Amino acid sequence: MKNVSMDTITQAFLDYCGEETDPRTLFVLSKMVEHAHAFAKETQLTHAEWMRGLKFLYDAGQISSPERNEFVLLSDVTGMSSLVDMIGSQHDGTSSSVLGPFHSVGAPEMDVGGDLKQDNEGATVVVEGYVRSIGGAPVEGARIELWQTAENGLYYSQDAAQEDFNLCCTLTTGPDGRYALTTVKPAPYKVPDDGPVGELFRATGRTPWRPSHLHFIVQAEGHKTLVTEVFADGDPYLDRDAVFGVREDLIMDYAEHTDHAALPPDLAVGQNVTLPWYKVDFDFVLAPENG
Amino acid sequence: MKNVSMDTITQAFLDYCGEETDPRTLFVLSKMVEHAHAFAKETQLTHAEWMRGLKFLYDAGQISSPERNEFVLLSDVTGMSSLVDMIGSQHDGTSSSVLGPFHSVGAPEMDVGGDLKQDNEGATVVVEGYVRSIGGAPVEGARIELWQTAENGLYYSQDAAQEDFNLCCTLTTGPDGRYALTTVKPAPYKVPDDGPVGELFRATGRTPWRPSHLHFIVQAEGHKTLVTEVFADGDPYLDRDAVFGVREDLIMDYAEHTDHAALPPDLAVGQNVTLPWYKVDFDFVLAPENG
Repeated sequence: MKNVSMDTITQAFLDYCGEETDPRTLFVLSKMVEHAHAFAKETQLTHAEWMRGLKFLYDAGQISSPERNEFVLLSDVTGMSSLVDMIGSQHDGTSSSVLGPFHSVGAPEMDVGGDLKQDNEGATVVVEGYVRSIGGAPVEGARIELWQTAENGLYYSQDAAQEDFNLCCTLTTGPDGRYALTTVKPAPYKVPDDGPVGELFRATGRTPWRPSHLHFIVQAEGHKTLVTEVFADGDPYLDRDAVFGVREDLIMDYAEHTDHAALPPDLAVGQNVTLPWYKVDFDFVLAPENG
Repeated sequence: MKNVSMDTITQAFLDYCGEETDPRTLFVLSKMVEHAHAFAKETQLTHAEWMRGLKFLYDAGQISSPERNEFVLLSDVTGMSSLVDMIGSQHDGTSSSVLGPFHSVGAPEMDVGGDLKQDNEGATVVVEGYVRSIGGAPVEGARIELWQTAENGLYYSQDAAQEDFNLCCTLTTGPDGRYALTTVKPAPYKVPDDGPVGELFRATGRTPWRPSHLHFIVQAEGHKTLVTEVFADGDPYLDRDAVFGVREDLIMDYAEHTDHAALPPDLAVGQNVTLPWYKVDFDFVLAPENG
């Protein structure tokens, strides 16, 4: 195009792409450029502002490594990760939420009723529930992965004082679809704020904190895999989760119990649970694979 | 927000920003997020596609260094650099165009009529013109920086065989606003395509080539600084410049001359110009500083 102008540049981008371009790739790229150009025009973006944005990306690249991906964090804190999660799970099952950076493949198998708390500090929390299909039928053989922070707010992979796979496990449901375990309360968690994303937080008066949560992945044959988090009602950061992960159906309650009467009978720790203990009931509803 | 949804997440981003946030920063960021979210929704972006996009950014970060900025290149090849240039120069003067990565501060001063060609290969090109204000008045004391590739398509900073500042100079106009010099034809130039941006080119059947061009910066008191490029009519890449820099008023003609009759009389090389030689006439019209 011999006369690229503010009015023609978006079309020029499309025109420069070859006819052999994969149609979906072309569609996604053209929408991306259409929105990027509209953003620049609507804001009448200055050269200095755009340079600042490009410096942000350069700095994000410099601080990133296989262990620390500032672009994923940027995606998280702008809501893009959550939005893409929601776009991919538009069904009547349990809401999905962000995977986060602390999922470790290969967490040890544990029986239903097993003791994940072990020697961890903190009051005992009993988590119990059912995996069901959307119609209500229990799902047998569902594999539930759970991972969470210790009472100090750190995942085992961030904390040399914790053993490998501390507070991580894999459970498989029986014919009734039930799962149960003992653990401790997770703690609020701060996303890394020592890089460009931290500058963004400070420039906008935002908090890098996330409300405390239990991470779950639930997989079962014939169903969509569910990646989600379960939050505690009353958490001070529920209303401003740094990564936009909170959904109403993912908020649970820690019910306090001052005696052992309501303990599930099959817990590995039996009646040795210290008092008071806390109960979380949370069911997972899985959407059909081809829904 | 306790129930972030596809419908509420864009507003949630705004709501999470503090009241003390600089209004312009908040406006630019909110428009950025608004467009990013709209992009994801309109494309019903999949998790795999978004992961591919984030990998692109990560890879761009890994290949970037103070000498090689893949994010600036991405901005160039998506038209963002050109668009921001155009937004910043909406006036009746000469169009601006991209600065590019090869501008070196401190190019040697040369008199009007000076010989920039020196020992460079190629036919002689005489570039001549006037610096004027929008009303037509000549601008005295305008500083013109010019830089270009040699006949092999490389800038001196890319080519160990060229001396420092080869084909780079600074001229200052006299009372008539005129400039003139002898040089060689620049060659088409390929933007780096060995990184993520190269993958983007290949995925979309685009060319990494730019049409040949002379780079100019023109600065004069009381006027907006003009950063621009001047292209050659008939260049095979005029219609698909990889960085969207071509504007109709920036296309010049190489007029062939088979004798010395039309040579400007004040050229340092005088009548020693080899035949045929080529003439480029290009005037710069500067917009007022506060226009």
